[in-house]
Amino acid sequence: MKIALLGYGTVGSGTAECLRNHPMEGVDLAKVLDKRKIDEIKEILTDNIDDILNDGTIETVVEVMGGEEPAYTFVKSALLKGKNVVSANKLMLSRHYDELVNLAREKNLSLSFSAAAGGSIPWLFNLLRAKRVDNILNVGGVMNGTTNFILDKMQTGDGADFDKVLKEAQAKGYAEADPTADIDGLDVKAKIALSCDIAYSKMIDPDDIPALGIRYVTKNDIDNFKAMGYNCRLIGRGEKIGDEVAVYVEPMLFKPDAAEYTLAGAGNIISYLGEKMGKQSYFGLGAGKEPTGAAIVNDLYDIAAGISIFDMAQCVGKTKCRPELVCHEYYVRTNTEFDRSIVKETVGDNAFITKKISVASMHELAQKIIADGKEIFAASIAE
Amino acid sequence: MKIALLGYGTVGSGTAECLRNHPMEGVDLAKVLDKRKIDEIKEILTDNIDDILNDGTIETVVEVMGGEEPAYTFVKSALLKGKNVVSANKLMLSRHYDELVNLAREKNLSLSFSAAAGGSIPWLFNLLRAKRVDNILNVGGVMNGTTNFILDKMQTGDGADFDKVLKEAQAKGYAEADPTADIDGLDVKAKIALSCDIAYSKMIDPDDIPALGIRYVTKNDIDNFKAMGYNCRLIGRGEKIGDEVAVYVEPMLFKPDAAEYTLAGAGNIISYLGEKMGKQSYFGLGAGKEPTGAAIVNDLYDIAAGISIFDMAQCVGKTKCRPELVCHEYYVRTNTEFDRSIVKETVGDNAFITKKISVASMHELAQKIIADGKEIFAASIAE
Repeated sequence: MKIALLGYGTVGSGTAECLRNHPMEGVDLAKVLDKRKIDEIKEILTDNIDDILNDGTIETVVEVMGGEEPAYTFVKSALLKGKNVVSANKLMLSRHYDELVNLAREKNLSLSFSAAAGGSIPWLFNLLRAKRVDNILNVGGVMNGTTNFILDKMQTGDGADFDKVLKEAQAKGYAEADPTADIDGLDVKAKIALSCDIAYSKMIDPDDIPALGIRYVTKNDIDNFKAMGYNCRLIGRGEKIGDEVAVYVEPMLFKPDAAEYTLAGAGNIISYLGEKMGKQSYFGLGAGKEPTGAAIVNDLYDIAAGISIFDMAQCVGKTKCRPELVCHEYYVRTNTEFDRSIVKETVGDNAFITKKISVASMHELAQKIIADGKEIFAASIAE
Repeated sequence: MKIALLGYGTVGSGTAECLRNHPMEGVDLAKVLDKRKIDEIKEILTDNIDDILNDGTIETVVEVMGGEEPAYTFVKSALLKGKNVVSANKLMLSRHYDELVNLAREKNLSLSFSAAAGGSIPWLFNLLRAKRVDNILNVGGVMNGTTNFILDKMQTGDGADFDKVLKEAQAKGYAEADPTADIDGLDVKAKIALSCDIAYSKMIDPDDIPALGIRYVTKNDIDNFKAMGYNCRLIGRGEKIGDEVAVYVEPMLFKPDAAEYTLAGAGNIISYLGEKMGKQSYFGLGAGKEPTGAAIVNDLYDIAAGISIFDMAQCVGKTKCRPELVCHEYYVRTNTEFDRSIVKETVGDNAFITKKISVASMHELAQKIIADGKEIFAASIAE
C-alpha cells in the first residue's frame, strides 16, 4: 500500500520515523506534501496536493497538517478520489464529522483517526469496540496534556502562580506560544465532540459545547483545593441522558481515591462507563511526536491489513449538546457580586461552594461575568 | 457466521446474553455444549462435542469451559476441523500457546482470547497493536480482582485480618471456595505468561514463573505498609532485559502517586511501557459474567467482520523466564532466621527492608522458608 503524508511537521516526521523503525511489508511512504525544502525526504517531496490526489498508485493519505483548511478540502478530495484517509486533525474532523464519515462509508473507504483524541492512547478505537457490545452511559476525562502539566505543576510544585507555570510549559514545549486552544478548553471541545460522535453515532458540533478553561486559576484557588483535599483537572465529558447527550468542558475537582487525582505531568486519562462492562479507563501520553506518530502508523497498518475498526463508525444526524441536563456543585471564586441563593458554603475569604446547579447555568453565569470584565474561576466537584 | 458455545456457566451465559442484547447481523448462536439440562437453550443444547465439531455450518467455537482438559482437546480439534476459536481460558491457552497459535496461523483461522487476561479490559488486544509500532520494554500490573478485593479491604476497611476478609470475598462471590489459584498467584502466572507471549512472540511456560502470593499477609503487615505510606497489590510482571524476559508474580508496595495505589475493589490495572509511546495503562473490571461476556462477543464480532487483531499473534519458540535479571528491595516479615547481610533497615519489631536483591533470590529464599513450615510474607517495593 503506497501512502502519502500531508504535512511533515512534528507529527508528520514522527509518523515517517515510526514507519522506518517498524516497517510493515508492502506499506511504503511514496509522497510527502510540504511547502518547505526538506533534504531528508527530497526525493518524495512535493508542494502540490494534485501530485498526490491524481496519483492513482497512492491508496492512503495521512493528513497531519492541523487546522481546518486546507486540511478539510484535501481530506474530502482524497476520499472523493477513492483514497483511504488517516487523520490526527481533531478540529477539522470534529467540525465535518458527519460529512466525512458518511462519505467514507459511501465510498467503502477507511477514515481512521485514533490520534485525534488521546494522542498515543487508543481511546477512540476502543470506544468504538466497547459501544458495539455495551450501552455507553458516559465518556470523557483528562484529554489535554498541556493543561494537566500546568495544573500538576501548580498543585505539586513550589506554589507558583498560573503565568509563571504557563511560561515554563511554553519553554519546555508543552504549551504553544498562543496557549488559547489549550487553556480555554477549545482543544478538549474537539476531542470530547469526537468521543461523543463515536459513542452515540450522532454529531455534536464542537463549537456548541460550553467550556470553562483554566486561564483564571490562581495560587489562592490551588491553596483552597489543597485545604479541601482536592486536585483540579480540566475535563471534557459527555453523558447520555435518555435520548439526549449532555456535553461540557470544565475544571473538575477530584478526591485522592480517583485515578485523575494522581495524574502527573502531561498525562491523559480517559474513560467510558458501560452499562454492563462498568468503567474502563485509558492512561498515557496524550501528545508528542513519537507517541502520536505510533498511533497513526497503527491506524495505517490496520488499513493495510484490512482490519480497520474505524469502518464501524457511523453518523446518523446531528444532536444538540444539552448541558442543562446535568447538575454539579461548583467551587467558585469571583471578585464580583454573586447570587447568594445558590451558595451552599463559603471557602476561605473569597470563594464558596454552590448548591447543585446545572452545567448550563454555571457556564452562562461565568461567561457573563467574564464578558463584564470581571474575574471568576469555577470548577465542578466530581461525584 | 454460526457459532457454538462450549460451556454455559457464568461466562458462557454472559456471552449468550450479550449476543442477544447487542446482536450483529449474520452472527447466530447455533449450538451450546453443556452436560446439564438448561431449559432456556434446550433447542440448541448438546452434551456431545462431536455434534459441534462435525457440524460444517459452525464456523466459530467459543470455549468458556475453563480448566485444561477437555478444553485443550476440544479447541485443538475445532482448529483442526477448520473452525475459528474464541477462548477465555488463560490456563489452557498459556500452557499450549505455541501449538495453538501456530496451528491457527497454519490453518489461516482466528484464535482470539481478549477475555483470558483482564476480563473486560481489552488488554491483550491493545498490547498486540502496541507491539506492532513500538518496542515493549515491560508489561504487567494488577491482573487479579480477587486478591485486589482482599488487599483493598484489609487496607481501607476496619482492620480485619486475612482470613476474615477472604471469607467475606467468598460470601460475595469474589473468591472461589478453594481460593488457591487466586491467592497463591497461579491465576496471575497464566495471565502474565500470555501477556509476555504476546509482547515478545515467544512462549513463557506459566508453570516456570516464580510466584509469591498473599496467603501469609497479616494485619500487622498492613499496619507496617500504612506507616511507610504504601498500599500493597499482587502484581504480575514481565521485563525485557536484552534478549531475555524476566517474569514474576509477587506482592508489590506502591506509593500514593502510583495509579495502582488507589485501585479499589476487584479492579485491574495493567500497563505496558513502550520505548517511544511511554507507559500506557488500562483500568477496569477484570472479571464478571457481563464484562467478560462482552469481551468475548467483541472478539467474535471482529472475527465475523474479518478484522481480528489476534491474527497478528506469533510464537517463534519458547523462552525461559529469568527472574535473576531483575532486582528489588523487599519488605520481609518472617518468624525464622534470616541472612542479616541483606537487611537494609528494620520495620517495627519483626519486619525489615532488604537491600536490592534479585527476584530469583528472594523467591527461592521465601519458598525454602515456607517449605520448612515457617512463615514469611515478602513484597517488593515499586520504583
